[in-house]
This record gives sequence, C-alpha cells and structure tokens, in this order.
Amino acid sequence: MIILGVDPGLTRCGLGVIEAEGGRRVRMLDVDVARTDPRVAPHRRLLTIFNALEEKIARFHPDVVAYERVFAQENVRSVTGTAQVAGVVLLAAARAGTALGSHTPSEVKAAVTGNGRAQKLQVQQMVQRILGLPELPRPKDAADALAIAITQAWRGGADHMVDTTRAQHGGAGMLPDNAGPGLTPAQKMWADAERLARRHGAVAPE
Amino acid sequence: MIILGVDPGLTRCGLGVIEAEGGRRVRMLDVDVARTDPRVAPHRRLLTIFNALEEKIARFHPDVVAYERVFAQENVRSVTGTAQVAGVVLLAAARAGTALGSHTPSEVKAAVTGNGRAQKLQVQQMVQRILGLPELPRPKDAADALAIAITQAWRGGADHMVDTTRAQHGGAGMLPDNAGPGLTPAQKMWADAERLARRHGAVAPE
Repeated sequence: MIILGVDPGLTRCGLGVIEAEGGRRVRMLDVDVARTDPRVAPHRRLLTIFNALEEKIARFHPDVVAYERVFAQENVRSVTGTAQVAGVVLLAAARAGTALGSHTPSEVKAAVTGNGRAQKLQVQQMVQRILGLPELPRPKDAADALAIAITQAWRGGADHMVDTTRAQHGGAGMLPDNAGPGLTPAQKMWADAERLARRHGAVAPE
Repeated sequence: MIILGVDPGLTRCGLGVIEAEGGRRVRMLDVDVARTDPRVAPHRRLLTIFNALEEKIARFHPDVVAYERVFAQENVRSVTGTAQVAGVVLLAAARAGTALGSHTPSEVKAAVTGNGRAQKLQVQQMVQRILGLPELPRPKDAADALAIAITQAWRGGADHMVDTTRAQHGGAGMLPDNAGPGLTPAQKMWADAERLARRHGAVAPE
C-alpha cells in the first residue's frame, strides 16, 4: 500500500510517500516540501501546492492520502490558511479517487514515538530509525509528512475521520507488535520506546 | 465585467453571477446553490463544490471571483469546513486565472444595505431591488452570493485582500452616486437607504 502523507502549510507543505509492506514494515519512496512565497497572492500559492500534490499523486499513485488535522486553538489567521491548504489536499485526494486519512499532531507523535507530547527532534529521530534513513529526514520540514504517512500505515483507518477515543485510550490499532521476525532494528527500537512510554502512562496499557 | 460571487459553505455553497455594466448598473446572469450531503465524506463534498465552481467558470468566464471571508470567532469545526471550501474557491479562481476579491459579512451588508448589521431579510430585499428581480432571489441561500458579487462590483478591489480601514470609515469606493442618469429605481432606492444609514451613523459621512 502506497501512502502520501501531507503536512499542510501555506508557506511549506510537507509531502512524504511511503510504501507499507505488511506488518510494521515501511519504506520511504519520496520526500519533498512544496514551498510558496508569502508575497504571492494566496490563491496562487494554493495552486502551487495543489499542482505539487497532483504531481506526487500522478507519480506514485497512492492508495491513501493522509494529512495532519489541526484545531483552531492558536492563531486564527494561520489556522484559516492551514485549513484552506487542507481543503486543497482533500480535493486532490477526491479527484484522484484515493482513500483519505487524517490524524491530529498528538496522534502522530504517539504513533511514531509512543508519546503524544514528544518533541519535534524526537519525532524526526524516530522517523529516521523507522525508515532506516542514513540521517535525519531532509528537507527537515518533511519529517512530519513522513510521520503522518507512518501513522496512517500503522493505525490504518483509511477514508474515515479518526476515532479520537481510540487515540486517547490506546486501542488495539495503535499498539505495536513488540517483537517478531518482521521487525527491523528501527522497528524494534520503536516497540521498545512505546513499551517504555506505556510504562510511564503516555499510552494506556492493553 | 463578469463577477462570480461565492458564499462558501460545505452543505450549501451559494453561487451568483452578475454583470457589472459601469457605474452602479448590475445585472444578474445566474444564481445557484451547490448542495452536498453531510453523510458523504468531506473530500468528496469538496469535489462536488469544486466541480460546480469550475462549471460556472467555464460557462460564464468571470473576470473576478469574489467570496465571503469569515473569521473563526464561533464554532471552530464549522469554520474549518468553511475555510476548506474557501480554499477550493481560491484554487478554482487561480486555475482559471481570474482575479480574486474577498469581503467580510459586515462589508457585504454595508455595501448592499448601507448598514453593516443588516438582517438577512434586508439583504435579500436589497439584492432583489438592486438586480430588479420580480421576487426575492431564489434559491434563498443564494442571495448572499449575489450580495457578495454586487459588493465586488461596487467596492472594486479585485485580486487584493480588502482594506478594512476603508470599510470602517466609508471611503470613496463605498459611497454611492446619490443620483444621476445611470441609476435604476432600485439603485436610487439603494442610494436613499445608504444616505439614511449614513445619517444614523452606520456609515461615516464624507
């Protein structure tokens, strides 16, 4: 299954493509950031992002597009811009006929690091390990897009809005196989991290 | 100049097309509402709205797309949906290469009725009068889309974000010709309404 993960942003929109190969095995196919100039009119910036999305979809034929869903707690202006980008992401998925998944920032952090309040660097490091990359994902802004794609691969839930109850309580879909022949060293590390986090109460026990 | 006015909404998206014929003369070409089923996945609903927008643009070749800009004061969830629709409106304008205008609800009310806090029915009645319609605009939901298009025709400001200072202080662009050979009876009525509103302080004096 091919997954396009999108971290929506008007100035920088992260785009990460992975292949989920069964179990927890995931492989990076592409990572990129669509950048737009803040001096350009917003509708033209959205078009740039839309064209980048359609180009990735045409090239990798994802089965699912997964994006990070944010809530308007903070700056209303930036949230409006982000929601407009999300609208364009949803539209690109609908036009291509892919399934759609969405995850909140804390769901992504919990899935990738085992801790819903992980720091940005921890997320980057876990993405590096999970995908077996020689260094932190570059461009740096795109680590989140890969994390979203990994979250989609591991939590599943294509084409539905995420069940937040499950995220809060750590349902079966969120828990890793703790061991097994299919795990890479990075994935074992992840499983260890999640066990540790669970012991500290960040993820509810089974 | 052809103007497509859009009242963005996920369940009902109003679409009004007018022709601005110079001075304050405006003529309705089309009015419609793109409706989507709340039980359908959001990305498919956005696609329905996008297709309706592209259909109107292909049919009427607007010079400007103008939409109502809302702020996230109220329900965050509905504002996010509205902002996603706005993103799709902006994208459609950018793909077609039209100019873009945006106006807040109170700017639209002030432009059409002379009172930034007018009731919905007053806006509908003024839209009926201004466009010389035999009855209130139908479908009812679309009156706002026509009001937005009229606001765009009268206030101008294509392809820029609206200068709210000008709206608050009633700059030259907002004030009507109070009389003149180019005015229809409806437009004279509008000018009267605005004079009245100005006297009551809703619009600052010249």
